[in-house]
Amino acid sequence: MVIVLKKDATQQQLQEILNMIKELGYQAHVIQGTERTVIGAVGSGRGKDKLQAMENLPGVENVVPILQPYKLASIEIKPEKSVIPIRGALSVGGNAIVVMAGPCSVESREQIIQTAQAVKEAGACILRGGAFKPRTSPYSFQGMEEEGLLLLRDARDATGLPIITEIMKPQDIDLICKYADIVQVGARNVQNFPLLKELGKIDKPVLLKRGMMTTIEEFLMSAEYILSSGNSKVILCERGIRTFETATRNT
Amino acid sequence: MVIVLKKDATQQQLQEILNMIKELGYQAHVIQGTERTVIGAVGSGRGKDKLQAMENLPGVENVVPILQPYKLASIEIKPEKSVIPIRGALSVGGNAIVVMAGPCSVESREQIIQTAQAVKEAGACILRGGAFKPRTSPYSFQGMEEEGLLLLRDARDATGLPIITEIMKPQDIDLICKYADIVQVGARNVQNFPLLKELGKIDKPVLLKRGMMTTIEEFLMSAEYILSSGNSKVILCERGIRTFETATRNT
Amino acid sequence: MVIVLKKDATQQQLQEILNMIKELGYQAHVIQGTERTVIGAVGSGRGKDKLQAMENLPGVENVVPILQPYKLASIEIKPEKSVIPIRGALSVGGNAIVVMAGPCSVESREQIIQTAQAVKEAGACILRGGAFKPRTSPYSFQGMEEEGLLLLRDARDATGLPIITEIMKPQDIDLICKYADIVQVGARNVQNFPLLKELGKIDKPVLLKRGMMTTIEEFLMSAEYILSSGNSKVILCERGIRTFETATRNT
Amino acid sequence: MVIVLKKDATQQQLQEILNMIKELGYQAHVIQGTERTVIGAVGSGRGKDKLQAMENLPGVENVVPILQPYKLASIEIKPEKSVIPIRGALSVGGNAIVVMAGPCSVESREQIIQTAQAVKEAGACILRGGAFKPRTSPYSFQGMEEEGLLLLRDARDATGLPIITEIMKPQDIDLICKYADIVQVGARNVQNFPLLKELGKIDKPVLLKRGMMTTIEEFLMSAEYILSSGNSKVILCERGIRTFETATRNT
Repeated sequence: MVIVLKKDATQQQLQEILNMIKELGYQAHVIQGTERTVIGAVGSGRGKDKLQAMENLPGVENVVPILQPYKLASIEIKPEKSVIPIRGALSVGGNAIVVMAGPCSVESREQIIQTAQAVKEAGACILRGGAFKPRTSPYSFQGMEEEGLLLLRDARDATGLPIITEIMKPQDIDLICKYADIVQVGARNVQNFPLLKELGKIDKPVLLKRGMMTTIEEFLMSAEYILSSGNSKVILCERGIRTFETATRNT
Repeated sequence: MVIVLKKDATQQQLQEILNMIKELGYQAHVIQGTERTVIGAVGSGRGKDKLQAMENLPGVENVVPILQPYKLASIEIKPEKSVIPIRGALSVGGNAIVVMAGPCSVESREQIIQTAQAVKEAGACILRGGAFKPRTSPYSFQGMEEEGLLLLRDARDATGLPIITEIMKPQDIDLICKYADIVQVGARNVQNFPLLKELGKIDKPVLLKRGMMTTIEEFLMSAEYILSSGNSKVILCERGIRTFETATRNT
Repeated sequence: MVIVLKKDATQQQLQEILNMIKELGYQAHVIQGTERTVIGAVGSGRGKDKLQAMENLPGVENVVPILQPYKLASIEIKPEKSVIPIRGALSVGGNAIVVMAGPCSVESREQIIQTAQAVKEAGACILRGGAFKPRTSPYSFQGMEEEGLLLLRDARDATGLPIITEIMKPQDIDLICKYADIVQVGARNVQNFPLLKELGKIDKPVLLKRGMMTTIEEFLMSAEYILSSGNSKVILCERGIRTFETATRNT
Repeated sequence: MVIVLKKDATQQQLQEILNMIKELGYQAHVIQGTERTVIGAVGSGRGKDKLQAMENLPGVENVVPILQPYKLASIEIKPEKSVIPIRGALSVGGNAIVVMAGPCSVESREQIIQTAQAVKEAGACILRGGAFKPRTSPYSFQGMEEEGLLLLRDARDATGLPIITEIMKPQDIDLICKYADIVQVGARNVQNFPLLKELGKIDKPVLLKRGMMTTIEEFLMSAEYILSSGNSKVILCERGIRTFETATRNT
């Protein structure tokens, strides 16, 4: 952390800040600038939140973090590319581009099997289809639930395509894992932390979609929830964000 | 719905669109404009999603909905102000402004009771404090859980202030309802539909916070989830949205 | 225009609205829906602003425009692609992708000529470089002005690459047109309407950059300013917009 | 500036960075952290842009500026509140709230004089009205120009209210200053730097509106353009920004 003092910070304020840094288990390095005094706090203490909170102390202008908050999701910890095995020889994250395609919702046997065949012919490697649907309106169709999962399985049997489908609540994990090759977390659940923690305990790949309001840093922190709970098979899915522009659905 | 045709829509395309509107159970009114033909689809059918999907038909430029998608949350259904009783004589939504205040997290008995006394003296009517915390980082303090709820109860006993606390997953509903006077849904869960549906089945007031990227229409649709599941005690909480400006946390 | 009435609009309000539509030179078509009455106003009058302003009348819920506000910039007026001749055989808007490249600012003879040679070798067809620079800070380098234009001309002589450079105020038009093959309007000036009007009177291609908060509709309306003043050689330049995400400069 | 090195920066990279800092006229203070090396660059050199550009050097992760880029607009330079005298005893920026009100455009003598009387009665202290209008569409009414300024003057004579009106291009400065008590820069021109520079040379108060895409920092930098050109009478006008929300015009 770098702590920037106010222009008019007093010597006494400086001393109190230095004492507090020391108490939190960090070493303080003071740099007297021409207009400002800046303090570098060095150490690997557990007091990061408290260092950050020093922003509210008298004499402090702001506190600038130096390190990224994500660890396991960082290329510093794991510089090589992550390659996630899916089913058979198929994996995501290598040199080949893997296209997942399919309808928004599973609606009928005929619909999902015909679509599976069509997307396979068009070159897709994975079939997507929703059985549990997060809908903005409570009056919209909410998905076929387990019946939809069974139809997805039939479509996989018919085409050989692995399947990905969305999960919305922790209670559905066992059911969905019984059928899906990849479990999808939708954009609205990207910060549903209880769900992410549970998905960290399974042994299936999880595809995490970026929320419409999620910064890249928050997105990686959500991946960190899954990774730090023990599941390293996380696939990130960019899907555009919400902006002022309404001419397209996402930007 | 109003269906706007393309400038170069053919007579045959128009006829097919009219047939489809009729099949969906609506009456079609055609208006021949100087530059465009516009069709009004009148009726109360269940085919609204399908009318909207006509946007993809040849000859159609766009489909404009006339009615708002929310019903129970609309002042058309319920023109009078909603007044939600909380505890004793206290209610939210009347003429008096009700301030809810307290710490982000419950951290200790001393902290929460002192804070409760302070906010009461300052004029607040309801004590807020988190026992289950949605934190961007899995490494941050996640709340005291049930122990925090017990401390909130003690603070209510000490001051008489009703308490509000956040819920993060359906499994915690019974536990939280045992202690809380108001159940809070945080910004990140504003579109956690399984949670909202369950909260529609309880008999406690629910305070729903607007998400940082939630439109007013989506916000009302989330309220509609709770309302349409049977709980009419919904309190909406505006809390600012995320924009390009970083000088303040929310705009 | 489609005028949507409030659910509780009275018969008298409806009548007044119909009278006003007629006075503005439009024909009114009334559609009685199951929940709302909707009026289509048909005609090519000059009263569009006043129709739109009916939104404020008692009994009116909202007014929905049917036609886009841009005319000359619309593919309805000119369905074929616009191909803008630049210099010699080079044109923009055909099948070939034309890359314009070069430094932010012209800084010295050596810099601009070396860069011109490098971008030409790399496949660029047009040299870009700023002589007048819009800088957020008044203390930053503001460009070499005419001296920079002379150096751009020298770089064109040395490489054969046509040159594009930015204009910031109407007074500089003659000077810049003396040297530039394309006049660039920067993102900050996309709604500098006096400048756009003047650029509508010249016989040079104008490259209009989208502003960081410009909707596609506003962008086309800015093009309309140039087009409607008589210059049809408008090149639109998408350059990303400003969003909440700070990990990249634009989204 | 604080320069943060990459985790794997080499000793040689560090040395090159230190040499460059010294060459730019700054002193370097190295802090060896547990995970990162951080360098504080101290001094008041003119090399700030070049320090910032070190972000692209091998071994550098990012460069964090410590000081704000605005000077004259900063409360550090001028801690007391700015009170801008308008006309007679009236000033803006003191304890009294000064309301400026009036129509978007001046449309007729009757309209502007009646409006002036109405806003005066309602408590406004300054009359606003546009004679030159920045309109998104070239087909919309663009203002009465000088005739509108004359009508504003008449309204001031009739009511005693000082007047504020918008400027759109440097060529109109003399004309507008002849009539206006405050010159308004609209949101679309907040980064029209040639205009701001010219307004820095006049002796009238300038009201600068925040653009819909302007950060607070950019807004202050635009004020800095006027201030650094010699005019200290700058009034900042917040007017909301553009966001994803379309339920209100601005947020």
